[in-house]
Amino acid sequence: MTANKAYLDLEARFRRLSAIEGALAILGWDRSTMMPPGSADDRGEQTAALGVLAHEILSAPQVGDLLAGAEAAGGLDAWQSANLREMRRAWIHATALSPALVEAMARAATRCEMAWREARPKNDFASLKPHLQVVLDLVRETGQAKAAKLGVSTYDALLDQYEPDGRAERIDALFAELEAFLPDLLQRVLERQAARPAPLPLAGPFPVEAQRQLGIEMMRAVGFDFSKGRLDVSAHPFTGGTPDDVRLTTRYDEADFARALMGVLHETGHAMYEAGLPAAWRHQPVGRARGMALHESQSLLLEMQACRGLAFITFAAPRMRAAFAGTGAAWEADNVLQLYTVVQPGFIRVDADEVTYPLHVILRYRLERALIVGELALDDLPAAWNEGMQRGLGIRPPTDTVGCLQDIHWYDGALGYFPTYTMGALAAAQLFQAALRADADIEPGLARGDFVPLYRWLRVNVHEKGASAGTDDLLRATTGAPLGADAFRRHLERRYLQS
Amino acid sequence: MTANKAYLDLEARFRRLSAIEGALAILGWDRSTMMPPGSADDRGEQTAALGVLAHEILSAPQVGDLLAGAEAAGGLDAWQSANLREMRRAWIHATALSPALVEAMARAATRCEMAWREARPKNDFASLKPHLQVVLDLVRETGQAKAAKLGVSTYDALLDQYEPDGRAERIDALFAELEAFLPDLLQRVLERQAARPAPLPLAGPFPVEAQRQLGIEMMRAVGFDFSKGRLDVSAHPFTGGTPDDVRLTTRYDEADFARALMGVLHETGHAMYEAGLPAAWRHQPVGRARGMALHESQSLLLEMQACRGLAFITFAAPRMRAAFAGTGAAWEADNVLQLYTVVQPGFIRVDADEVTYPLHVILRYRLERALIVGELALDDLPAAWNEGMQRGLGIRPPTDTVGCLQDIHWYDGALGYFPTYTMGALAAAQLFQAALRADADIEPGLARGDFVPLYRWLRVNVHEKGASAGTDDLLRATTGAPLGADAFRRHLERRYLQS
Repeated sequence: MTANKAYLDLEARFRRLSAIEGALAILGWDRSTMMPPGSADDRGEQTAALGVLAHEILSAPQVGDLLAGAEAAGGLDAWQSANLREMRRAWIHATALSPALVEAMARAATRCEMAWREARPKNDFASLKPHLQVVLDLVRETGQAKAAKLGVSTYDALLDQYEPDGRAERIDALFAELEAFLPDLLQRVLERQAARPAPLPLAGPFPVEAQRQLGIEMMRAVGFDFSKGRLDVSAHPFTGGTPDDVRLTTRYDEADFARALMGVLHETGHAMYEAGLPAAWRHQPVGRARGMALHESQSLLLEMQACRGLAFITFAAPRMRAAFAGTGAAWEADNVLQLYTVVQPGFIRVDADEVTYPLHVILRYRLERALIVGELALDDLPAAWNEGMQRGLGIRPPTDTVGCLQDIHWYDGALGYFPTYTMGALAAAQLFQAALRADADIEPGLARGDFVPLYRWLRVNVHEKGASAGTDDLLRATTGAPLGADAFRRHLERRYLQS
Repeated sequence: MTANKAYLDLEARFRRLSAIEGALAILGWDRSTMMPPGSADDRGEQTAALGVLAHEILSAPQVGDLLAGAEAAGGLDAWQSANLREMRRAWIHATALSPALVEAMARAATRCEMAWREARPKNDFASLKPHLQVVLDLVRETGQAKAAKLGVSTYDALLDQYEPDGRAERIDALFAELEAFLPDLLQRVLERQAARPAPLPLAGPFPVEAQRQLGIEMMRAVGFDFSKGRLDVSAHPFTGGTPDDVRLTTRYDEADFARALMGVLHETGHAMYEAGLPAAWRHQPVGRARGMALHESQSLLLEMQACRGLAFITFAAPRMRAAFAGTGAAWEADNVLQLYTVVQPGFIRVDADEVTYPLHVILRYRLERALIVGELALDDLPAAWNEGMQRGLGIRPPTDTVGCLQDIHWYDGALGYFPTYTMGALAAAQLFQAALRADADIEPGLARGDFVPLYRWLRVNVHEKGASAGTDDLLRATTGAPLGADAFRRHLERRYLQS
């Protein structure tokens, strides 16, 4: 207990804020999973009212004084100091913008997203462009307002919303590292795969209920606590809710169970992070996930590093076969593993394998930065996209539908988000290799469906850190190095060139 | 549009309040239907925070001044005036109590309810008594505080929480009317039933999924709009959510489908009322249900008046048979009707038929009033209960488990609620008879599963009135008389003595 009264007052305010945000998270989950379609306006009223209340708590005139007072008074331990720092960050993001700008941004994003839903299937970028221009201008204004308060560049201010302390300079360096080896590595992987017989396909259909049961079985194996979470269905899978009430979703395709299963494992990785956040700091900013890069590292560590590896597939393949009463050689672990590690350049990011995925992200990152700094006009976006695909992946999208119209992010106002996907992939490789080094039982555990050793390490070294340290500091402490591309490169070489 | 600025300011505040209450309603539904068991504390934080925010909006220092200003300024139409009156009522209830009393009440009720869950199955009233005494004292204090503001008696102030403007004097008169004929009528019904062959039982089991589909089919027939509502499962059935997002629940018993089916119809009656409330006043106090008596009238009108009658059973019996692939004479409409109108005095209120139900309620009403005014000590409650059962229903509970421990209400702090059940039953008969008189197509409609004529009348005459008029005024306008027992008596005589 500290005698820093201003700090204690802030803790009480942020606790209240966390409860409202928790309520919003459950309402958001309900909207995507349970809400009848005609109730959207009603829900909109509720979430808008709660959003305003949350903003009022954070931007109350006293909060600025309390922050300054708490910082001046001192007497805080390391966690409290980190908490105060995260309070300051949340306050800056909340108060940097005028209410008019927040409202204009929300309205423009909603309108543009609706237009995008129509324009994407019609391959109609032209009709969408005016909407996107409005969004882009407002995002730039948002970035500039936050940049002034944070003392960083406009793009870095946008990035900071998703990846605290994330900087374009770091990302440029990381992505340059990737570009130095990835195109060549991809070429070698493609040649190697072409020289081998293709894996045998698994014959469906795969009934939804059997898929659901298999997903639940695998979630239990990983250690997901169903007394504090659920698995449901939504059009776009996500992990929502709160650390003590984690709500995962997936969607099922009866022709292909791997999409749902790997999707469930991906979301379970996110969920395990949330559930493992430091309980003592549950309703405080420092008790939250560090940022989107580490969050994505946890989903990719589980899905890509652990569950698309031979050890786990050795455990899972017989269970898959049992779930769907499969027969034949296609269900052997070796074949299943081969199926789950096919590399194939394609137009669609969300369908990409882990070798080509970063190339999709690098393209988007370069384009969105150019848009923000004004080096690229929207008129030139489709052509720039297609040329970038040609250069990076060797394929040219035949339409904007599978080109610059495919992702919702920009049309929804989310610029600065894309790089966190690949930062997460790099961190996942780095953390997984550190975990394997630290505990020799982790890999044998996966082969018997025992994730306890893996999560014992992740809990202590990642989850329970919350937001107490920056991404690089956390990685340095747990892996011996800040975020880099080495571990990712080793991972790809081992899995795709040496196995 | 009025120039009464204070009134318009109040409308904005109550709109915000309604959004928070809507969010709380969805979170409450989630808690009972979807929430994992380990997430209760987290949800408690969320609902407590939202409850405090709602209370702050309502009890803000400006609200009292705005109410006085709006009342003085005038210039309001009839609906606005009624809205202002309901705002004042909400404000009185919210501000009559000190925060310390509200908190003490909430804590005592939670503790007592938890003790009740243990004591009820153990038939252990003695261990519960100290907890109930604390609750009772705080309820009395609550009633006294509200009574001072409302200018009514302590019990009437408690009643006013559930039935606005409800008064014990009116209830005494109504219940005296009932007692004048009900015991004798019950005797004659029992003799008549004893003289007839018993109805044939329907043979189960009745699979849950078939029950669910049948429930949904019947809800659709009634006119429930699934684009703005859902049917789910909970331990204790209820209707929750909001008028634009109505969330019904039921529970299924594979040995007896009638419980769930009639339960679903009962809740659908509540739901149709909510959904039919005046859309133009959606987020204002006057746009809400009038009170619990009218709310219960809508569930009982559908379940008891319409759906346990020959017309509807003629439509429903073949559908029941089809749903469960039933065979034999038991599935004929006449037999089903007889099954659904068996009268049998029993210990348990929630299992009671519509003839004996009011006798359960009258007993509880008398006892809770005596408790509140101090004429009955808790020590004497079990004996008073058992004697009351003997006098009213001719049976004596062998244990308190099926006696004064059976209902949660008192242990949860809800005194003043019970009479609204029977006020609702009387209102249901009165409204249904008025509807049948007003539109000759209503009853033939029920026989073909067409509820449009019935709900056309109920929408205009009940639902769309919202809280614009008092219960008696509304009944006077739509049925020609204030709430009374005549229609209920005619209904019972027709159904149980003349059919």
